[in-house]
Amino acid sequence: MYPIEEFLNRTERVHLLMAPTPLHTLAGFSEYEEGKIYIKRDDMTGIGPGGNKVRSLEYILGEAVNQGCCKILTAGPVQSNLCTLTAAACARLGLDCELVHNGREPEKKEGNLLLNYILGVKSHFLGDCSSEERNAYTESLAKTYEQKGISTYVVRNGATTGRGALGYTAAIREMKKQCEEMGIENMTIFAPGGNGGVAAGLIYGNELLGSPFHIVIISVEDKKEILTAHIRDTIRETEAITGIKMKTTVEEAAEISDQYRGSGWGIDTAESIEEIFAFARTEGIFIENVYNSKVVVGMKDWMRSKRIKGPVCYLHTGGFGSLFAQY
Amino acid sequence: MYPIEEFLNRTERVHLLMAPTPLHTLAGFSEYEEGKIYIKRDDMTGIGPGGNKVRSLEYILGEAVNQGCCKILTAGPVQSNLCTLTAAACARLGLDCELVHNGREPEKKEGNLLLNYILGVKSHFLGDCSSEERNAYTESLAKTYEQKGISTYVVRNGATTGRGALGYTAAIREMKKQCEEMGIENMTIFAPGGNGGVAAGLIYGNELLGSPFHIVIISVEDKKEILTAHIRDTIRETEAITGIKMKTTVEEAAEISDQYRGSGWGIDTAESIEEIFAFARTEGIFIENVYNSKVVVGMKDWMRSKRIKGPVCYLHTGGFGSLFAQY
Repeated sequence: MYPIEEFLNRTERVHLLMAPTPLHTLAGFSEYEEGKIYIKRDDMTGIGPGGNKVRSLEYILGEAVNQGCCKILTAGPVQSNLCTLTAAACARLGLDCELVHNGREPEKKEGNLLLNYILGVKSHFLGDCSSEERNAYTESLAKTYEQKGISTYVVRNGATTGRGALGYTAAIREMKKQCEEMGIENMTIFAPGGNGGVAAGLIYGNELLGSPFHIVIISVEDKKEILTAHIRDTIRETEAITGIKMKTTVEEAAEISDQYRGSGWGIDTAESIEEIFAFARTEGIFIENVYNSKVVVGMKDWMRSKRIKGPVCYLHTGGFGSLFAQY
Repeated sequence: MYPIEEFLNRTERVHLLMAPTPLHTLAGFSEYEEGKIYIKRDDMTGIGPGGNKVRSLEYILGEAVNQGCCKILTAGPVQSNLCTLTAAACARLGLDCELVHNGREPEKKEGNLLLNYILGVKSHFLGDCSSEERNAYTESLAKTYEQKGISTYVVRNGATTGRGALGYTAAIREMKKQCEEMGIENMTIFAPGGNGGVAAGLIYGNELLGSPFHIVIISVEDKKEILTAHIRDTIRETEAITGIKMKTTVEEAAEISDQYRGSGWGIDTAESIEEIFAFARTEGIFIENVYNSKVVVGMKDWMRSKRIKGPVCYLHTGGFGSLFAQY
């Protein structure tokens, strides 16, 4: 057993995930002759509308519960997947949850906002303000509750924290086992890089579990240097928690591309818009605009230009709820 | 091996389902002391927005493919889950699909209509007309295509057919294996009864696989006598296909309740509206108004009034896509 597995087995965690999520072949992309093409269905994590952040929340809320906190605060834009997932996870765990949004409350509840309403979570709409102002409000709200004697835990930075990254470190263990059972070797995983939480967990986990995979991170937000720095910072945080360090640099351990991000987070490219439709029409599976479609565009381009060999896997990180507010 | 298993192994089927769907305990309902409470996650079938009809479509589209059909027609109301699922399944299988709706095309594409748009399926909106008129249009459309030399298959009666019911016959086999692995015995399954497709498959499969479960069907549409007749008719069709007959009557093989249906299909009751919120707020899992919430209301009432003993299981039949158009 690798030391990181011993750590994962003993650290605080709550059970939320329907694991393992399916790993199966895709129907399309028949032009790729170098190996099979898989999809890892982290859209099917089984809480709320599903999605990747359930993995991070297992370790983050594990810490919250361990610290005796009964109120959970998290912040994000109005259609934040993390906010809805945190609300759903807290519902299941019997924890009180409040959401803080930078943005105004729309008249009609669409997408994730409708789900938040059904979940009955208390939402604070701060109107037009920066994410820094939103986060400052969240911290002051936490302080107010603490002063009233209510133990409060803030899910910070979109769940991209040293603890949050453990979710995708554990996912590497899960996928390694699935690949062993399915006889898949030498697979390349394509995953999105936003603020780098999923990427940090994957890259850290992959190295500490014997590098079973190649990792390609497709930036959906920032330039390569900025994303790489985010990933490095989060991995440093994770190392401080586990006491186990990576031996290589982020650049050595993974390939990071900023070629498909267009003008950045939430801003579609012509190819990413096209891919939403193309993917659904080939696979019968829905992807959304912000995190998923650019990754598929990048993966297809790498496959077409023969930049990789062997089987490839697209990590579907979910976001089905937000799709309904994107059109 | 039971004779029905031999039949299931040899009959035409396409692969769509991410099987087995999760079976896990629910967090709430702590007042029930007679056994554990489970949920079968057929909302997580892995095609399109998920849901129960994926199971029926495996056997129905299996027949279509076997007959060499490349065009699939199906009909339903504008927010029909079956229509969206058929479109998604056909996308994955490379089949051409067209949908026929009784209803007008809304200006804004919400819920399943948005998903149909993304799937790029051709939709016929007939305006206000009866489901009989809609079905007649669908059959004449099929004839037109056939005359042009295009082999066309109609998914009839909301996939509630003798072949469609095989999906839930196979689901009983899947659940039986899961229960054996998890050490669950003597479980009662609560499932919705609309036009009786899921119910027919469950009741037929349960008897022919040695009655591992008790089955309770909660009508969400018709009075008990009408629903029972629907179930009986569908089972007769299934028996004609498999050549294997049930030895008991539907009434002997299952309990059917019409106590929770209110004024019928798609018409909420005070309790069912309440349950959408209560369930999400306890479990972090979304159910919708038409098929799911009345079943949970019924199951809770049976548990509260001690009408059952032992573990219970709520069969979540999905419909997440339509939830977005219900508010």
